[in-house]
Amino acid sequence: MELLKSLCQVHAPSGNEAALKDFLLTYIREQSPRWQVQPEIIEGPEWQDCLMLVFGEPRTAIFAHMDSVGFTVRYDNKLVPIGGPDAKTGYRLVGRDTQGEIEATLVADEEGQILCVDFPRLIDRGTELVFKADFRESPTHVQCCYLDNRLGVWSALQVAETLEHGVICFSCWEEHGGGSVSYLVRYLWERFHIRQALVSDITWVTEGVKPGKGVVISLRDQRIPRRSFLERVVSEASQTGVPYQLEVEEWGGSDGKEIQASPYPIDWCFIGAPEENVHSPHERVHRDDIEAMVALYRALMRHL
Amino acid sequence: MELLKSLCQVHAPSGNEAALKDFLLTYIREQSPRWQVQPEIIEGPEWQDCLMLVFGEPRTAIFAHMDSVGFTVRYDNKLVPIGGPDAKTGYRLVGRDTQGEIEATLVADEEGQILCVDFPRLIDRGTELVFKADFRESPTHVQCCYLDNRLGVWSALQVAETLEHGVICFSCWEEHGGGSVSYLVRYLWERFHIRQALVSDITWVTEGVKPGKGVVISLRDQRIPRRSFLERVVSEASQTGVPYQLEVEEWGGSDGKEIQASPYPIDWCFIGAPEENVHSPHERVHRDDIEAMVALYRALMRHL
Amino acid sequence: MELLKSLCQVHAPSGNEAALKDFLLTYIREQSPRWQVQPEIIEGPEWQDCLMLVFGEPRTAIFAHMDSVGFTVRYDNKLVPIGGPDAKTGYRLVGRDTQGEIEATLVADEEGQILCVDFPRLIDRGTELVFKADFRESPTHVQCCYLDNRLGVWSALQVAETLEHGVICFSCWEEHGGGSVSYLVRYLWERFHIRQALVSDITWVTEGVKPGKGVVISLRDQRIPRRSFLERVVSEASQTGVPYQLEVEEWGGSDGKEIQASPYPIDWCFIGAPEENVHSPHERVHRDDIEAMVALYRALMRHL
Repeated sequence: MELLKSLCQVHAPSGNEAALKDFLLTYIREQSPRWQVQPEIIEGPEWQDCLMLVFGEPRTAIFAHMDSVGFTVRYDNKLVPIGGPDAKTGYRLVGRDTQGEIEATLVADEEGQILCVDFPRLIDRGTELVFKADFRESPTHVQCCYLDNRLGVWSALQVAETLEHGVICFSCWEEHGGGSVSYLVRYLWERFHIRQALVSDITWVTEGVKPGKGVVISLRDQRIPRRSFLERVVSEASQTGVPYQLEVEEWGGSDGKEIQASPYPIDWCFIGAPEENVHSPHERVHRDDIEAMVALYRALMRHL
Repeated sequence: MELLKSLCQVHAPSGNEAALKDFLLTYIREQSPRWQVQPEIIEGPEWQDCLMLVFGEPRTAIFAHMDSVGFTVRYDNKLVPIGGPDAKTGYRLVGRDTQGEIEATLVADEEGQILCVDFPRLIDRGTELVFKADFRESPTHVQCCYLDNRLGVWSALQVAETLEHGVICFSCWEEHGGGSVSYLVRYLWERFHIRQALVSDITWVTEGVKPGKGVVISLRDQRIPRRSFLERVVSEASQTGVPYQLEVEEWGGSDGKEIQASPYPIDWCFIGAPEENVHSPHERVHRDDIEAMVALYRALMRHL
Repeated sequence: MELLKSLCQVHAPSGNEAALKDFLLTYIREQSPRWQVQPEIIEGPEWQDCLMLVFGEPRTAIFAHMDSVGFTVRYDNKLVPIGGPDAKTGYRLVGRDTQGEIEATLVADEEGQILCVDFPRLIDRGTELVFKADFRESPTHVQCCYLDNRLGVWSALQVAETLEHGVICFSCWEEHGGGSVSYLVRYLWERFHIRQALVSDITWVTEGVKPGKGVVISLRDQRIPRRSFLERVVSEASQTGVPYQLEVEEWGGSDGKEIQASPYPIDWCFIGAPEENVHSPHERVHRDDIEAMVALYRALMRHL
C-alpha cells in the first residue's frame, strides 16, 4: 500500500492535477517495462493535465479521475469549496502560496456554510488547500483523505500490469463540474471507435451497500446508464466469482455523467469500492473490496 | 389509434428504450413500403438504442423521444424516480425481474418524496417499474400514461408516410438528463449539414394553452430558441390554416435543450399537442390537437 | 464613449442577438480598414447570430457575449426572465410587437418572483422586453443597463485595432444557458488548434474587488480554470504594470463554463472590469478599470 499512501499525499485539487499527472508519469515510466503489454503514453499540452495509456487494440476505456475536493482561499482567509468537501472545524488543511508552506485549521459555522481558515497571516487569494493526509492501515481497512479517487487511480495501475487491450484515462475536474472527459471521449471515439467505458471511482456505504461485501457495480446514480450494457457487465461479473454488490442511487455523479453527455455514443458503468466518511479526511475502505475491485476490472477488461 | 395504444404499452423507461426501438423497427419495415419515400434506416450498435429515418435530401430533423418516466427499485422495495413522474399512492406499476412479472401498487408519503412499492416479495435491485397502461378513448380525447411521448412518436410516424425530405430521430434519455441527442446531432451535421430541428413532444395545458385550441408552438421554456427561427416557424404555421397556440414558459425542457448545448449550430423549435395530468397514468390529449400536430409537421417539413 | 452608448441601446436579449451582430458588422466594415491587421470576418447562416474576427495566426481567442438579460412576455402581460435580471417595480422596459413600439413599467411583487408589465394593451406572447437605456457619464464612471456585456464587446473592439494574432468571438445566449460557444470552440480547435481563451466580460464589485482598483482576473467562479494557465496569465499581467485585482468566487459563470464543458481542451480565464448594480438599469463601471481592461487584453494577446 506504499503506492496508495504516496498517491494520497499528492496535492491535486480540481483544476490543478499537474502534480499527480507528473507522479503517475514517473511511476509508469519506471514500472511499465515489467507490465505484460507496453502502453502508448498519451499526454502533453493538447491534453491539459490528463494522461492516457493505450494497450493493444482497445475496446473498453477505464476512467479514473485524479482530482480531489478541497478549498480555495477567498478574501481574508475565507474559503470556498472545491467540489463538495466535508467541512468540520478542526480539520487540518495544507497548501502553499508565495510566502511558503501552509498548515492550518479549518473553522466552519454550525451549518458548514461559512468557512474560514485559522492561520496567523493572510493567505494569497486563490491558494488551494486540501486535507492533510494521515494514511492509516488496519488488518481490514485503509483510511485516509482522498481514497476517492486515489484508490480508483491505484486500482487502474494494478489493472495496467496485466492489461492486454484497453485504455486507461486519468481525468481532471471530476469533483468540480467536469471538463476533461468529453475531449478524452472524442479522441477515443475518433481513433478507436471505443463504445465502452468503466468508471474506476469510489462510492458510498449506504443501507444497501456494506463494507467488506464486495466491489460495487452501480446500476444508476443521478444518471442512468444504458440497461443493456449494465446487464452485460453484471452477467460477466457473475461469472467471475468476485464478490460484488449492486447499487441504486438517486443522486451522485461521476465521469460517467460527462461520458453520457458527450456527442459520442459511449456506454458506461461505474464500478468501485464503497467508502465510509465520504469526502472527509477519514475516508475508509475495506481491503476485501479493494481486492475485489482490482479482480473485477481485470476480468471485465478481458471479457467485455 | 391502435398504433398509439400499442406504443403506450411498450416498456421503455429512460435508459432502456430497446423494446420501443424494436417495436418501431418492426412497424417501419412493415409499413414503409407503402410510404411515399423509402427512408434509409440508421440503427445498430453505434447508435445505442436510437433509430433514425432519412428521407430524400434532408434540411430539417424531427426529434421524438422514445423514453418514459418511471421508477427504479432501490433497496427493500423502495423506489427512486426516473425523470419526474407524478407519484401518488395507489398508482399501478408494472415491470419484470429475474423472478418474473411484477404488478404492484405505489405508496408515497404526503409530499411524494419517500416512495415504495407494495408487493409481496423483494424485487431485484435496479428493476424498472412503469405505470400500467390503461388506454382510454372518448369522442374528443385520448387518455393513457405516456402519451408523453408515444404521441410524439406516433405523430412522427404519420408524418413519415408522406415525407419527402427530412430526418426523423427517435431519441433516448430525454426524461432523465439526456445523452443521445448530441451524437445524433453530430451525425446530422457532419453528413447533411442539417441546421433545423423540430422537437415532436407533448407539452402542458396551462392558463395560456388550452385543450382543443390547436397544436402548441413553444416560443421558449427553460431554454430560448433563436428568435429568427421561431419567427420563420410561426410565419409558415400562420399560412397553413392549422390551428396553433403560442406557448411561453419559464421552466420545462426537451430534446431542444441538448440540441442547443451541442457543439453544432442547430436551430430548434418545440411543437406538440398539450396534455393534462402530465407524467401521470392519466395523461389526456384532445383529438383536435393531435390532428393539428400532424398537419403542422407535414406542412413545416415541406416549407422550412 | 459614443460607441459604447450606441452598443448599450441595441435590442439583443439572449436568443435574439441579430441586431447587435448587424451593428457590429457595419462598424467593423467601416472601421477595420484603419486597423493594424485586416481580420477575416466569419459569419453567416452556419454561425447563427455569432460573429468571429480572425487576425493573423491566432493562438488565443477572446470571447465577448453580445446578449443581455431581459424579460419575455408570457400571458396577460406577465413576464418571465431572460437570464437573471434585477426586477424592481418602476424599471422602464422597451420592446416591439406586431402592434408597434412598447415602453412600459415593470411591476414586481415583494420577492421579485411574480413579474408583470403595466401597459394599456395586451402585448404579443413571446415579445422580449429589455431595460430602457439611460447612458450616464461622469468624470470617473460610466453607467447604463447592459454594460454587461456591451463593455466587454466594446473592449474587444478597442483591442481589435492593434491586434496582430488572435480571434475575437462575439457569442450568443451567455445570459441564458449558453448555446453558441461550444460550436465556436469546435471551429477554432479544428481550424487553428487554439488552446487559449480569454473571456471579455463584466464581473461584480464585492468585498474583495473594488471599483477603480483595476481590471479583474478571476481565479475561479462556479467553475475552476486550469491552474497552470491562470498562473501564466497572472505572471504576464504582473509584468505589464496594468492595475489588476484577483477574484475568487463560489458562484457566477460565463462563456468560460461552456468552453470548459466543450469536447475540446481549451484553457480559459475570465478578465474584465467589475461593476456595481449588476443586471439592473444602473450598472456602473469605473473608467480606470475600463482603461485597464483594454490595456491588459492588448498585452495578453501579444504575450500569451
